[in-house]
Amino acid sequence: MTKLILDLDTGIDDTLALLYALASPEAQVIGITGTFGNVTMEQGVANDLALLALFGRPDIPVFAGIDHPSWASSFAVMPESGRFHGRNGTGNVEIPERSATTGCSRGVQTRTAVDFIVDSVHADETDELVIVPTGASTSIAAALAAAPDIADRARIVMMGGALTQPGNVTPFAEANIMQDPEASAELFASGTRITMIGLDVTTQVKLTREQAETYRETGTATGAFLSEMLAYYIDVTEEAHPTGVPGCNLHDPLAVAAALDPSLIDTFSCDIMVETEGAGRGRTIGDPARVTCPSGRTQVALAVDAERFVERFMERTLAFVRRCP
Amino acid sequence: MTKLILDLDTGIDDTLALLYALASPEAQVIGITGTFGNVTMEQGVANDLALLALFGRPDIPVFAGIDHPSWASSFAVMPESGRFHGRNGTGNVEIPERSATTGCSRGVQTRTAVDFIVDSVHADETDELVIVPTGASTSIAAALAAAPDIADRARIVMMGGALTQPGNVTPFAEANIMQDPEASAELFASGTRITMIGLDVTTQVKLTREQAETYRETGTATGAFLSEMLAYYIDVTEEAHPTGVPGCNLHDPLAVAAALDPSLIDTFSCDIMVETEGAGRGRTIGDPARVTCPSGRTQVALAVDAERFVERFMERTLAFVRRCP
Repeated sequence: MTKLILDLDTGIDDTLALLYALASPEAQVIGITGTFGNVTMEQGVANDLALLALFGRPDIPVFAGIDHPSWASSFAVMPESGRFHGRNGTGNVEIPERSATTGCSRGVQTRTAVDFIVDSVHADETDELVIVPTGASTSIAAALAAAPDIADRARIVMMGGALTQPGNVTPFAEANIMQDPEASAELFASGTRITMIGLDVTTQVKLTREQAETYRETGTATGAFLSEMLAYYIDVTEEAHPTGVPGCNLHDPLAVAAALDPSLIDTFSCDIMVETEGAGRGRTIGDPARVTCPSGRTQVALAVDAERFVERFMERTLAFVRRCP
Repeated sequence: MTKLILDLDTGIDDTLALLYALASPEAQVIGITGTFGNVTMEQGVANDLALLALFGRPDIPVFAGIDHPSWASSFAVMPESGRFHGRNGTGNVEIPERSATTGCSRGVQTRTAVDFIVDSVHADETDELVIVPTGASTSIAAALAAAPDIADRARIVMMGGALTQPGNVTPFAEANIMQDPEASAELFASGTRITMIGLDVTTQVKLTREQAETYRETGTATGAFLSEMLAYYIDVTEEAHPTGVPGCNLHDPLAVAAALDPSLIDTFSCDIMVETEGAGRGRTIGDPARVTCPSGRTQVALAVDAERFVERFMERTLAFVRRCP
């Protein structure tokens, strides 16, 4: 069993990452921490609560993270993020309300995301916990600053960065890193065990329009919601990349899948630095100062068994959606 | 036996690459083609002729390549190149003249480098030939333009580029690629089989001051020349990177060694594009258009058995220098 903390900016592919985690028998999601990026932290957390209700898991606690980058006093969603994820984060499709909502924790926790991360790492005596960030690194960097000892103990499998491929918000920077390059730089410099699931591999993983439509065929409101949300995502992706492979990328779900089953990816050991200055701001690149004395603490995924992952993704999430309202 | 064409801009580490090739029993250097970069093409070719005489191999023909980038009408050595290689390419140390020079071809060939490359690839029926470029890609791109069919047949193991590490002339560009990004872009887009030996691995390979001094202990003029040239190279390298590992990098020799023994490196299959515009001009990066349909024609070295290579380099070159005047 792998315990997961999902640090989400929910977000279409964050929604799918959460769905995949809940649909995976070997995963136990112990909490969701909200960050910003695709949407504001507040919107993301509201989406997380609504999705957990829909997916029948209102027992999973949601924690509010830091709502703006370390280099700024506030945060506004980038136009490109709004374009890809819609004004509400789920492609302008409303998350269905589950009628007979049962149980606890229908609001955000009073404990902060930073405290929850620190406490959870401290409580993890058997190295079962993996933190999966899929948005800005701000809260995780703050947790490392608050409790530097967690760098030795935490395990992170993050969606973010690009080492062997260009960025997606500048020629050099991937969107999650670009939200807060200073925070990501601190994270990569901290010595924490990190597996970077970047554009190197997530661009290889595509969900087709046909696959997206199969959720609707479950006859559930959840399935209809997912198919509509994915249709929006595929439309904007194909519009943005008219010559690319059709479909949409499963960026964030791949990070969850790699956290649960590292055999899906091949990794390259490389100490990463994050550039914070100039044209390269937000670039994740090997650190020349550590090239002859590698720490072995950072692994970058460079290859993925895309077919096996997408097949497993569809199988698990479809079975899960069939059990939803 | 591997037949080699060395496309050199000689250059301190080009000198060492030539030395290593001549000292390797499994290599047959069938010709040197001159390019520009560390020095002008003319200076490089003059150095090649002098070195071949010194090393007792005046039988190896030297061909003049194109002497300026495809994007310009002339070429001037970049200040950084002059700093690293000296005004004459061999660290301001004179190449000793061999007194009893025997034999043929003491001048540059009348055939051009481009023609020699095309003819040699056409004549190579058993796939024994490897072209090892260690400077600007201009002549090789011109050969591909003159005879596009050689893209299917040629094998190239090049020193150049950087995929997982920053550049060395800009944060994004490595020096050889930056000499003529348009030519390198054509080369990588051509479908030619390329193994890229870039800063990813060459920065891991260091020769120490102590190792450099052992050539002098052979008591030969050749050894004294090499030790003095290397002392210059180590001085400027350590001055430029005061916090780095001491010594100098064996950039170009590693490409020759990998051409002769691929087991020295681990490669990552990745279709590379070369950026020609903006801040990233000269960057070698994965081509997003080919990430889901890789050609398998371009391999990028990401790991190197540095210890085994340096040991072999010293053993072979020292034995060779002991037989020189």
